[in-house]
Amino acid sequence: MECVVSLCKCWRPVCLCLFSTMFRFRVGSKQCALPTPKMTENGLGHREKVLNMNTMNPNVKRVEYAVRGPIVQRAVQIEKELKEGVKKPFSEVIKANIGDAHAMGQKPITFFRQVVALCAYPDLLEDNKFPDDAKNRARRILQSCGGGSLGAYSASTGIEVIRQDVARYIEKRDGGIPSNPDNIYLSTGASDAIVTMLKLLTSGEGKTRSGVMISIPQYPLYSAALAELAAVQISYYLDEDKCWGLDVSELRRAVEAAREHCKPRALCIINPGNPTGQVQSRQCIEDVIRFAAEERLFLMADEVYQDNVYAEGCQFHSFKKVLFEMGPEYSNTVELASFHSTSKCYMGECGFRGGYMEVINMDPQVKLQLTKLVSVRLCPPIPGQVLLDLVVNPPRPDEPSYATFIKERTANLEILAEKAKLTEQIFNTVSGIRCNPVQGAMYTFPRLTLPEKAIAAAKGQAPDMFYCMKLLEETGICLVPGSGFGQRDGTHHFRMTILPATEKLKIVLENIRAFHKRFTEEFS
Amino acid sequence: MECVVSLCKCWRPVCLCLFSTMFRFRVGSKQCALPTPKMTENGLGHREKVLNMNTMNPNVKRVEYAVRGPIVQRAVQIEKELKEGVKKPFSEVIKANIGDAHAMGQKPITFFRQVVALCAYPDLLEDNKFPDDAKNRARRILQSCGGGSLGAYSASTGIEVIRQDVARYIEKRDGGIPSNPDNIYLSTGASDAIVTMLKLLTSGEGKTRSGVMISIPQYPLYSAALAELAAVQISYYLDEDKCWGLDVSELRRAVEAAREHCKPRALCIINPGNPTGQVQSRQCIEDVIRFAAEERLFLMADEVYQDNVYAEGCQFHSFKKVLFEMGPEYSNTVELASFHSTSKCYMGECGFRGGYMEVINMDPQVKLQLTKLVSVRLCPPIPGQVLLDLVVNPPRPDEPSYATFIKERTANLEILAEKAKLTEQIFNTVSGIRCNPVQGAMYTFPRLTLPEKAIAAAKGQAPDMFYCMKLLEETGICLVPGSGFGQRDGTHHFRMTILPATEKLKIVLENIRAFHKRFTEEFS
Repeated sequence: MECVVSLCKCWRPVCLCLFSTMFRFRVGSKQCALPTPKMTENGLGHREKVLNMNTMNPNVKRVEYAVRGPIVQRAVQIEKELKEGVKKPFSEVIKANIGDAHAMGQKPITFFRQVVALCAYPDLLEDNKFPDDAKNRARRILQSCGGGSLGAYSASTGIEVIRQDVARYIEKRDGGIPSNPDNIYLSTGASDAIVTMLKLLTSGEGKTRSGVMISIPQYPLYSAALAELAAVQISYYLDEDKCWGLDVSELRRAVEAAREHCKPRALCIINPGNPTGQVQSRQCIEDVIRFAAEERLFLMADEVYQDNVYAEGCQFHSFKKVLFEMGPEYSNTVELASFHSTSKCYMGECGFRGGYMEVINMDPQVKLQLTKLVSVRLCPPIPGQVLLDLVVNPPRPDEPSYATFIKERTANLEILAEKAKLTEQIFNTVSGIRCNPVQGAMYTFPRLTLPEKAIAAAKGQAPDMFYCMKLLEETGICLVPGSGFGQRDGTHHFRMTILPATEKLKIVLENIRAFHKRFTEEFS
Repeated sequence: MECVVSLCKCWRPVCLCLFSTMFRFRVGSKQCALPTPKMTENGLGHREKVLNMNTMNPNVKRVEYAVRGPIVQRAVQIEKELKEGVKKPFSEVIKANIGDAHAMGQKPITFFRQVVALCAYPDLLEDNKFPDDAKNRARRILQSCGGGSLGAYSASTGIEVIRQDVARYIEKRDGGIPSNPDNIYLSTGASDAIVTMLKLLTSGEGKTRSGVMISIPQYPLYSAALAELAAVQISYYLDEDKCWGLDVSELRRAVEAAREHCKPRALCIINPGNPTGQVQSRQCIEDVIRFAAEERLFLMADEVYQDNVYAEGCQFHSFKKVLFEMGPEYSNTVELASFHSTSKCYMGECGFRGGYMEVINMDPQVKLQLTKLVSVRLCPPIPGQVLLDLVVNPPRPDEPSYATFIKERTANLEILAEKAKLTEQIFNTVSGIRCNPVQGAMYTFPRLTLPEKAIAAAKGQAPDMFYCMKLLEETGICLVPGSGFGQRDGTHHFRMTILPATEKLKIVLENIRAFHKRFTEEFS
């Protein structure tokens, strides 16, 4: 399903030797894309391309995105080989590399899809098979669309009634703290809004260049966007020994070191955590807000996993709520953008690319600039806006679809909680794998103890990349090496989603256990 | 439906005096966003914002996007005033500012929406009301989606079968010239792909900074993207006296002048033209390709209006086809990206944000970088991908939906052709308005003769902005001033879509005629 291309050149250079033998290149030409041939004009008509590796945008070259990196490309190729009948020690590739719930078999929420279908093809509004609440919802949305059609552009910030529904959702979530629809910007998934905010925040040159603090390990959208914008990445480390907790002293260390070479302007938090699965305590969030206020940092809170909290004693607290509960000294001053998406939680509707951000205390003139900036792309996709509306405004207790909705939502979240526990339990029985509790989100980021000989055998490439590639070749399980997210030097990890169906997840975990044992023995 | 914000600060500064009295600001605070207050920390707790007009990205400040600029914001406000019962000399706002066919009453193609509904809610596959071809199409698409769901991510370049369908569509369109699915990148509307290509093409500093040639008048996505990327805009003028034709000597003048201050790298063409509605001849396209080859420019062909050709003797020729017909000297060397979309033509499905680009002769390594870059945003919205698949692979003559499809498509295109003619005819009866034939696309860009006194009364703001704002206030008709697209100094224009329903369009044209007469008399 994915195109077969290799990203060796954009990956860590150390992997090149491995990939060049592993991959066959099928992009435009049959030839291997490595190394860069130095072409010049000559009498034979061989002309250097206008757009080549030397003339292209150097910031783009620096972008890395491990979640769809070389391991995934190899996984796609293996899938094709399996289809073509190539013999492998396994019968299918299991992609536990990306938080893609539907691809792993999770079913859509019936009500959501009914309303989308009704909006797409309004003739169905006459159909008796659809419940009245779905029809009412569809009618209301269509009335807010130009010409009553999903095919019209919306306002660039999103359909007004949907922005109002988002504001009401946030108010309810946060115990009544007011939310203004004028502060809501709908987006093409959360990624779009995050990149837009980072874009606004990037300025300066040399030592005045904007610096943005991101956690390590991080979700590589952040490092990729910062590379593209040529902003400075300021890394702060989460504490693996404290369940991937965030310590303000580490934030302070990082920002102080950074001030010597850039102008720190923003602090990004992912809560619940990706790839680490931790859930921040209320106290921790307060500390972070106080730190942002003291250090004059714009806060970006990536809260797309807000419904994905599994561990006992853990609870999701939005940055907005904590900020407002800290009183006017903070709630009137600290600038915050928080992000949500249709892609995660219990619905997992990644393909619709729905999302929003809420901005708090943003300079009114900057807001006008933000509105102008998003208008250049016209509007977020309308089906994604519709999906988002249903997420923030699901069936109410007095409506006919309520019971089914609650049943489906609860089942999805319970199964995820069960799989979170299962993952932690099984990994922690493996000697050489140490796994923090998966408190939330959809991932585990266990630490690997790798033998010295394995590190030597990796021949300079990231040892966890070597490990994951071998795992893929031997078992068909596709994970992302920890090096793609960042980790403390000398440590090794992988990220695995907890999304495969329970029975399949058990097999995956058992296969990783067996592989780890073999791997350790082979290199001991 | 659109949020009420004013973009005065990003608009030409000369308009500020007008807007500051005209607009009430409702963004976050009630205060007017003009002018920039210079805030500093003081004992009263007034702190400068972290993100303010001085610290924000200066490139974003330079972005302008007239199609959704201040006139449109004012139009939205007037709509609200009408709803609130404010008396106006008209009863509705008619938005002829944006190519948004469904908002203007065009109906969706039945087959397209049936398939989208079936994909969104596959229970409908059991419903007898849907024709078999729609069901087959939906089944085929769902089989290519992860987990059989629109909610799964696709490959970042798009769903593989859809890319194959796009390639077949291009082959058929271009008389059999081969198209490789590996060269097809699906996108979030054409805008997304255009910005991505411009991003790849931007590099260098000072005199080596990338320059990109764009037509004047232009579609402001281009100038906006170049401003954001801090690339150099190289303007070449279309010849209004030759029906907005493109002359290679003008391209040469522009590129030679530009070489003194930047490194010209790319040439953007919009054909059929936006905002000018011209359709390029085959000869013209050949000349442009030869010029691009000689001057070593990457060609970007924006062909989103490829079905919108109305004038007798005019025909759409794709750049790809002409390039390949020119022989291997060109077809093996000239680098080309061409763009298409679901938003225009006969379908007008803007809200789905579907599109693709085909890249020809792209450096294989740059292609890997392109694939990596698009992977950071995960994938284009799946419903938009589905819509695109239907556009490139509509019902076949032996299928049950064929007759209705052809009827709907033909009707939409015939009505557009009729309105194109009507617009030209009526405008050309008005003394002081001169209008080229609307050969294609969805717009007319007539030239206005404005009295000297009107120009003086505009008090330094663009006279056509003054004209359009007055038109809006007096008639409720929302157009975009020519100054938002660029025009030769001393000339004045507006862009109007031909999309209002025929009877309404007649009224619009009559009202503009009457307004123009009044305006001319008032300022004579």
